[in-house]
Amino acid sequence: MSDALHRDPTAPTEPLYRDPTAPVDARVRDLLARMTLREKAGQLNQRMYGWDAYRRTPDGGFELTDALYAETDRFEGLGALYGLQRADAWSGVEHGSGPGAEDGAALAELVQRHVVRRSRLGIPALFVEEVPHGLMALDGTVLPVNLAVGAGWDPDLYRRAAAHAAAELRARGGHVALVSALDIARDPRWGRTEECFGEDPYLAARLTEALVRGMQGAGEVFAQDKAPVVLKHFAGQGATVGGRNSAESELGWRELHEIHLPAARAGVRAGAAAVMAAYNEVDGMPCSGNRALLAGLLREEWGFEGLVMADGLAVDRLARITGDKVSAGALALNSGVDLSLWDEGFTHLEEAVERGLVTEAVLDTAVARVLRLKFRLGLFERQDGTARPPSGGAELSRDLARAAVTLLRNDGVLPVGPHVSRIAVLGPQAATTAHQFGDYTAPQRPGTGSSVLDALRRLAPPGLDIRHAPGCTLTGRDLSGIPAAIAAAAASDLAVLVLGGSSARTPDTEFDANGAALKAVSEMTCGEGADLAELRLGAAQYALLDAVLATGTPTAVVLVQGRPHVVPDTASALLTAWYPGPWGGDAIAEVLLGLAEPAGRLPVSVPRSAAQLPVYYNHKDTEYGGYTDLGAEPAYSFGHGLSYTDFDWTEPAFTGRSLSVDVTNTGQRYGRCVVQVYLRRLITPTWPRTLELCAFEGVGLAPGERRTVTLPLEGVTGTVEIRVAASAAQALAVKGHSFTAPDETPL
Amino acid sequence: MSDALHRDPTAPTEPLYRDPTAPVDARVRDLLARMTLREKAGQLNQRMYGWDAYRRTPDGGFELTDALYAETDRFEGLGALYGLQRADAWSGVEHGSGPGAEDGAALAELVQRHVVRRSRLGIPALFVEEVPHGLMALDGTVLPVNLAVGAGWDPDLYRRAAAHAAAELRARGGHVALVSALDIARDPRWGRTEECFGEDPYLAARLTEALVRGMQGAGEVFAQDKAPVVLKHFAGQGATVGGRNSAESELGWRELHEIHLPAARAGVRAGAAAVMAAYNEVDGMPCSGNRALLAGLLREEWGFEGLVMADGLAVDRLARITGDKVSAGALALNSGVDLSLWDEGFTHLEEAVERGLVTEAVLDTAVARVLRLKFRLGLFERQDGTARPPSGGAELSRDLARAAVTLLRNDGVLPVGPHVSRIAVLGPQAATTAHQFGDYTAPQRPGTGSSVLDALRRLAPPGLDIRHAPGCTLTGRDLSGIPAAIAAAAASDLAVLVLGGSSARTPDTEFDANGAALKAVSEMTCGEGADLAELRLGAAQYALLDAVLATGTPTAVVLVQGRPHVVPDTASALLTAWYPGPWGGDAIAEVLLGLAEPAGRLPVSVPRSAAQLPVYYNHKDTEYGGYTDLGAEPAYSFGHGLSYTDFDWTEPAFTGRSLSVDVTNTGQRYGRCVVQVYLRRLITPTWPRTLELCAFEGVGLAPGERRTVTLPLEGVTGTVEIRVAASAAQALAVKGHSFTAPDETPL
Repeated sequence: MSDALHRDPTAPTEPLYRDPTAPVDARVRDLLARMTLREKAGQLNQRMYGWDAYRRTPDGGFELTDALYAETDRFEGLGALYGLQRADAWSGVEHGSGPGAEDGAALAELVQRHVVRRSRLGIPALFVEEVPHGLMALDGTVLPVNLAVGAGWDPDLYRRAAAHAAAELRARGGHVALVSALDIARDPRWGRTEECFGEDPYLAARLTEALVRGMQGAGEVFAQDKAPVVLKHFAGQGATVGGRNSAESELGWRELHEIHLPAARAGVRAGAAAVMAAYNEVDGMPCSGNRALLAGLLREEWGFEGLVMADGLAVDRLARITGDKVSAGALALNSGVDLSLWDEGFTHLEEAVERGLVTEAVLDTAVARVLRLKFRLGLFERQDGTARPPSGGAELSRDLARAAVTLLRNDGVLPVGPHVSRIAVLGPQAATTAHQFGDYTAPQRPGTGSSVLDALRRLAPPGLDIRHAPGCTLTGRDLSGIPAAIAAAAASDLAVLVLGGSSARTPDTEFDANGAALKAVSEMTCGEGADLAELRLGAAQYALLDAVLATGTPTAVVLVQGRPHVVPDTASALLTAWYPGPWGGDAIAEVLLGLAEPAGRLPVSVPRSAAQLPVYYNHKDTEYGGYTDLGAEPAYSFGHGLSYTDFDWTEPAFTGRSLSVDVTNTGQRYGRCVVQVYLRRLITPTWPRTLELCAFEGVGLAPGERRTVTLPLEGVTGTVEIRVAASAAQALAVKGHSFTAPDETPL
Repeated sequence: MSDALHRDPTAPTEPLYRDPTAPVDARVRDLLARMTLREKAGQLNQRMYGWDAYRRTPDGGFELTDALYAETDRFEGLGALYGLQRADAWSGVEHGSGPGAEDGAALAELVQRHVVRRSRLGIPALFVEEVPHGLMALDGTVLPVNLAVGAGWDPDLYRRAAAHAAAELRARGGHVALVSALDIARDPRWGRTEECFGEDPYLAARLTEALVRGMQGAGEVFAQDKAPVVLKHFAGQGATVGGRNSAESELGWRELHEIHLPAARAGVRAGAAAVMAAYNEVDGMPCSGNRALLAGLLREEWGFEGLVMADGLAVDRLARITGDKVSAGALALNSGVDLSLWDEGFTHLEEAVERGLVTEAVLDTAVARVLRLKFRLGLFERQDGTARPPSGGAELSRDLARAAVTLLRNDGVLPVGPHVSRIAVLGPQAATTAHQFGDYTAPQRPGTGSSVLDALRRLAPPGLDIRHAPGCTLTGRDLSGIPAAIAAAAASDLAVLVLGGSSARTPDTEFDANGAALKAVSEMTCGEGADLAELRLGAAQYALLDAVLATGTPTAVVLVQGRPHVVPDTASALLTAWYPGPWGGDAIAEVLLGLAEPAGRLPVSVPRSAAQLPVYYNHKDTEYGGYTDLGAEPAYSFGHGLSYTDFDWTEPAFTGRSLSVDVTNTGQRYGRCVVQVYLRRLITPTWPRTLELCAFEGVGLAPGERRTVTLPLEGVTGTVEIRVAASAAQALAVKGHSFTAPDETPL
């Protein structure tokens, strides 16, 4: 069938959908009416890996592959293409062969030109990229992982960093940003804990909102440096049993609403363009086939008008329920999934319509959502990738890292005082940035970022003698390096012991089709597919810790990690920087040396043992007495983080739907105080939690400075008790203030 | 208001409710119409502890207390009295002061006579007793705990034991048996794991059904040796997070239905007279205030017409939701609770009616249920406690213990062969029965039962030299006894090392008002309130194990425990007897010596570490790859248990809704094979589990004997794959047989 047969001879030469001044919805309707069933089905498929669409030519340019030709022939166009900019261990593309900052946009243009040419109606493809903590592509600016962002308690800073990441994506010709933002960290065994903003729904909601506002901006048509966000994962993925990746979650509807949905709700309210349906089930039904969740809750109840994308191969997985992939595709589409990812199931949608498994009307609705996003992006009229790459990424990344460094324990050894003349910088994480990044990170060009050792050498006052010994590797049992570390510690006034885990995927890691690590070879202990039951560092790291402590030299332990690990609380000081990104070394060194305030506060509770899980602070108020052997309290609770100075605040004053406190820095140094407001529900329709975070504000104060902090109590309803504190554990002890929310519905 | 004012002068001298030949419902209606609001409210209260109702007189008789007088004055009668027969560490009554087999009935009669006299209408009280594994009263026959019953996979034997326990209760003047039967063991950290039949809903349902049939018999009016059962706990108590007693459960409605409700459903179908609402919440709402659960599901959907009792102080706990105890009582009553336990909330029901919080119609419905049970028990006409105490309890208890002993590992050292001439019997559990009982056990008269050492000495062939050394205590860290154990092991051909935990409540254990252990002093590591995070035995037990193994003497480890503990799998043989009851020593010794077959099969999976939880076999079929450090497989999976002989079976043949296999004992000894039938759902409405047990049958076979076993596939619907295996782990490997259930609705 040639194109000519489809043309209406009475139509104007330029169809309505090509008119950039026409309303988006009218353009969508017009285009949809012109499409064949096959073309429509094609728009819903995102089957191909971007890295299979091209190869390098001998002269360093790109050429398109037969795989791309076949894919665009199949559906006479292309709905969406995933990961065109990726060149990493997962994708199997070596750095040199993949695109970088200098030619990513050219590659995108080359592919898009072919797609538009191959499409009878000239429909461009969506280029979808991973942007979990910065653009996951060579030369993309890597930000600290979400867990570190959660530790920063600074939505405004995160909004600016997200805006930067979106601009980087668009400058490379990418369109749509996949961002983990909805998963709530309820079990640190989960390898994707690092992708969560923490255990708390309110903190996560504030940061998700900042993410959407930063990346997308406002308005129906996206600015050229703004990108629609696909919020991952909807919903409840943090609740899978045992912290097992993509396993079942047994949680009920109410628990889902109270803990796992607020971030999604905030993201949707902020205008998120899309969400990704999660792998896990909610009450028996995988999210991709969960009509109650996608059609009922998300679209009908919340009024979400954006796109729902499936997670990788999640549609095909539904065949375990339906018996075959055609019905799996139909189930997903009927449940509310619009766009697949790598699945076969959605390639049979024509057949599904013909067999009556789905109606063309349902198909049309999904296609309209895909087209709508393309119009909102201006893809029909604009040349992509022409925006200048933004500057200032490194500064934003470093600022987020600074905000994340959290001091858990300090007997006075920090910051490094003038009496310290020799420091031993020890541990497998001390002299490398390789493990500071987290999962979903593109390989870095050599020389990017700073290790703790680098930064200490650069930032330390002149004359401070800095020695180094790694002591051991991250995961091995080889103890042969420990004597050198002991010698260095024994000869120093202070030992800085940098321990931790790693989510670095090296080329020898084995992956399944889905990108999950089949076997965590090399040193990968965290990240997607690397769930860790015992929450323990490699055995040699404990031996190193014991050996260094045995020297009697005061020791500050620094943890670089994607989840809380179980570490004996025996050192003089304990810090965690989570995965702080490339410039994490700077941020850690500044805090050690007292050049910066340890501003971070725990976004997750730290268990005393994996046997104590779950340990989140916002459990139900059952007054549980604790385990016979381990008690009830975690090692460190949500919100905890020490400062180098002291703060005092007044009793809160309530005005309408907000409270104010006057905060004073009563110490001798600058510091950042995070005022945390918790509520206890007094009369409730269901079993209440012990505490719920309901507002917070970080405030930096010079010594002696006093400032009034006003906090809105937005989501609060009914009669509650309000407690202002510096951590969840402290909130259990402080005085509560009765508060009855005014009747007006909050915004 | 005097009684006379309430009498109808036109009524016949003997009112209808006193006519034993009238239908129960008519008697209930008649009596209810005669009652005042206060009298009605009184029937719904079970506030008093039975042990506070009496004291011993100097001549060894009983006299009633002012507390009882006050309680019966308050409501002009008494609804129910809890624990009159109890005399234990919980109740604070010393053995000598509480009732025994010889005078329990007399005490019951004394109290009942007073209650009836104090009641204007002569309404007797219900005497409610704990009968979790045998009657919890001095001289009650102690049975193995439910977990051991689960290991026996023998519903018929359990039915007979339950019948015995009911007869003991009735012979003592007790009426109603509280029995843990509905909790499913999903997290072994929970101290009440011992009270569960195991992790599987089908196995639990079969045993719950056997319990109800055994205790209650058939017919509306209970025979004099039968007792109405209160099935505990409805519902989902096994799903509380972290295995924390009475904490929140986050589970959803579907998970509740698939895992936690089948036992209750089976119990209700078998005619259970009552259920107890669980402490925990289901999806946000505590069961005692959960109308959807009690009114909606249990009564409307299932058609349950029996009584719903609250758990101890569970009604008062609802004040955390409602703000005060009066509304808490109203919420519970409106939700479907009929009878309270120790609560203040239900003492204000008159006020609740007057304030309009509950209607008198709702109150009447609850009162009718209480009265109905009293009529069904014949309390208005019969003298209680006149039935002769039954005999044969010890034999039934010993048989259940034999059925429970499970051989997990055996390198050939068991059964003890003729070459063994010296055995060292070691370990803190070897020479005492004190820890064989489980929680909810009355103190035993000295000399009851047999320890492993006793039994080995009694049952061993003449000339077998048996030495003993305890080595250490259960929970201490004192290693001073270990050298003696080493010496004994080194001088022997075989070491039998009896390790484990304890649920024994000693007088120095501190309890809260609810009977939960506030602090597990002495050696209590299991039971209600003793949740154990790490699942580890006392530290000295591991030291003892290592030391004994280091002697090189072949060692059989025997675990006496109320939950699976983490024990290195390094000995020559490993058995678990759970808490086998008083005669557990006999059962264990018989298996060690080869006088009995190790008949038990695991009712719960045994984790490799607490960090691996949950480990139940019937997880969803997510093909989870396992933890980086611990993998996915438990140490031992559900259904596992070795035999001393070998079995072979034919491929299954299907006829209608059942299958048959021919089982042959191909070995040299008698043995009991448990044929386990698992299904895999192929086309399902929701995410399917990897495997589900759907039928089983134990069959004892002499060497060379062959028998055809026919198993009904009762609950199976749709298209499934059937796998016949000797354990869940084996079922993963064996060939499946496609089976489509006939359309007829199963019974």
